[in-house]
Amino acid sequence: MATIKDIANRLGVAVSTVSKGLNGAPDISEDLRQLVLDTAVEMGYKTKRMRKEELKKLAILVENMEYLKEDDFGYDLVLGFEQMAYRDKWDVEVVPINARVQAKERYDTYMLRHGYSGAFVMGMALMDKWMDEMNRTTIPTALLDNYVKMNTNVGYVGTDSYEGMSIAVAKLVELGHSKIAFLNGSPNSMITNQRDEAYKAALIEHGLEFDEKLVAHGYYVAESAPYYVPGMISAGATAILCGNDLIASGVIDECKKRGFKVPQDISVVGFDDIPLASQLKPALTTIRQERLELGRLAFFTLDSLMHKIPVSRTMLRPEFVERKSIGKAKK
Amino acid sequence: MATIKDIANRLGVAVSTVSKGLNGAPDISEDLRQLVLDTAVEMGYKTKRMRKEELKKLAILVENMEYLKEDDFGYDLVLGFEQMAYRDKWDVEVVPINARVQAKERYDTYMLRHGYSGAFVMGMALMDKWMDEMNRTTIPTALLDNYVKMNTNVGYVGTDSYEGMSIAVAKLVELGHSKIAFLNGSPNSMITNQRDEAYKAALIEHGLEFDEKLVAHGYYVAESAPYYVPGMISAGATAILCGNDLIASGVIDECKKRGFKVPQDISVVGFDDIPLASQLKPALTTIRQERLELGRLAFFTLDSLMHKIPVSRTMLRPEFVERKSIGKAKK
Repeated sequence: MATIKDIANRLGVAVSTVSKGLNGAPDISEDLRQLVLDTAVEMGYKTKRMRKEELKKLAILVENMEYLKEDDFGYDLVLGFEQMAYRDKWDVEVVPINARVQAKERYDTYMLRHGYSGAFVMGMALMDKWMDEMNRTTIPTALLDNYVKMNTNVGYVGTDSYEGMSIAVAKLVELGHSKIAFLNGSPNSMITNQRDEAYKAALIEHGLEFDEKLVAHGYYVAESAPYYVPGMISAGATAILCGNDLIASGVIDECKKRGFKVPQDISVVGFDDIPLASQLKPALTTIRQERLELGRLAFFTLDSLMHKIPVSRTMLRPEFVERKSIGKAKK
Repeated sequence: MATIKDIANRLGVAVSTVSKGLNGAPDISEDLRQLVLDTAVEMGYKTKRMRKEELKKLAILVENMEYLKEDDFGYDLVLGFEQMAYRDKWDVEVVPINARVQAKERYDTYMLRHGYSGAFVMGMALMDKWMDEMNRTTIPTALLDNYVKMNTNVGYVGTDSYEGMSIAVAKLVELGHSKIAFLNGSPNSMITNQRDEAYKAALIEHGLEFDEKLVAHGYYVAESAPYYVPGMISAGATAILCGNDLIASGVIDECKKRGFKVPQDISVVGFDDIPLASQLKPALTTIRQERLELGRLAFFTLDSLMHKIPVSRTMLRPEFVERKSIGKAKK
């Protein structure tokens, strides 16, 4: 392992300067401190704090996702991860991140500076700066819903969209639907792309034709519905699959507003099964992600990576939860 | 849970007859015993033995795969699984199975009768009777290299063929190869199909054309090579990817026999990295499956399933091990 002296030699500065940089002393410029940290990471240097076994700390980094309230999508993910981590005597810190944090510091440097041995990263978008750094990071990292090629330090944890879509479309076909629309979420995410592909695969599996007029990308919010539902209904849709439950709640509202009954006129299926789903009127039929279990699997994936077992992906089966928002296709 | 009486009522026999059937008493016909066991499984009945916590027993069922010697493909898989299972105080029994065992008894019945709480199943072929039963089994089961849709009791464990093929083809392209052949193993297996697809995907990724004359299916043995290597070389192949290391060893021999030098004339890449690979002349470049880790992941997958966490798949990253069997493409 590199020593402080190695770092000093490489940078051509005094050992004391490196030491100041590593320990965040105030009498050194921010630029130099950053350079010292970046070089330390690059050379595989670990601070004393990190080397001490008793300081075992993991991070859950959260972006674009609510997690504080029981109804939030991220709540059970955090809980499941923490449950497993505490059993293994890890401390877990949940840290919201954003573009500013990512612009300021490299991912590896951030992790080293905080003494995190690994992270579970939830909600990162494809265009994020740190997402690109995931291709090269040396920090064990479990990524929710994001896949990185080749890097043995990073594993992907998620729910099998293909199986979920396949079950949902099978059920709708059984109910006589053949014009099944799909209102998906924001395009700049791996999971959106995966669900698009899963939707297409499910149509093929059930002998239905793909019709561009029946698909659209909004955002993962209820407000997407008014923009796309009218067009889908004009194009003959009798059922609308949604990228998540929030979109579905907007779709139900929009259908009602336009005088269409759910499920008598239009069947609606959500994705995720957040607590809201069962409280909608009608109660939402949805493709459930077992978020508590997903959080637990994320810990397992991270634990494997920290033990140098290069898990590439761990997938959970979704569950089709049938409630009141789907019915027989209107003739 | 069903009782012995429930089973007796369903079958219209005496409770004592059911009891005899469950306990394997000699004074009851084999057919009736089987019917009792099948019905018990169907109704979710568990014998006292199974209910006792202290009897924790798992099975590793092995077919079409050697595992007793350190050089065997299955050796480390068994070891990795056992290492993890013993930590959790499970007993593990390794049981070779074959078509006869599968014809004689249903999978669930077999597992119940032996008191196994779950199984890691290695080497099963798509046409196997129990493979079909995997679609419906109620026994937690981790399947090596086989995927079953929808059944939440079954999870798939394997190595990511796509990533392996992608790295291998990238490396060969870097060395100037464009006619890259693929001699795969027996078609009646999910992993063979997956590697076929992975090969095609890797060609597309690197802008190479798929040529039917450059692909063939033999068996997963060295003896496949003489049948297919000459045709591939006639079709212009300068590199041959192989479905496993045994096939690759046959390919190297066949090339030599026909006066082609490896790697000067033909580059050869294996799959698996069994101990034999490094002992070949030239030492074989291969796509390594981390079998010890795969065995450990299999235990984790099974453990999750036994805890009702419906893992659908757990994939391990392969490692590209470069030795002496690949070189620059001959102009």
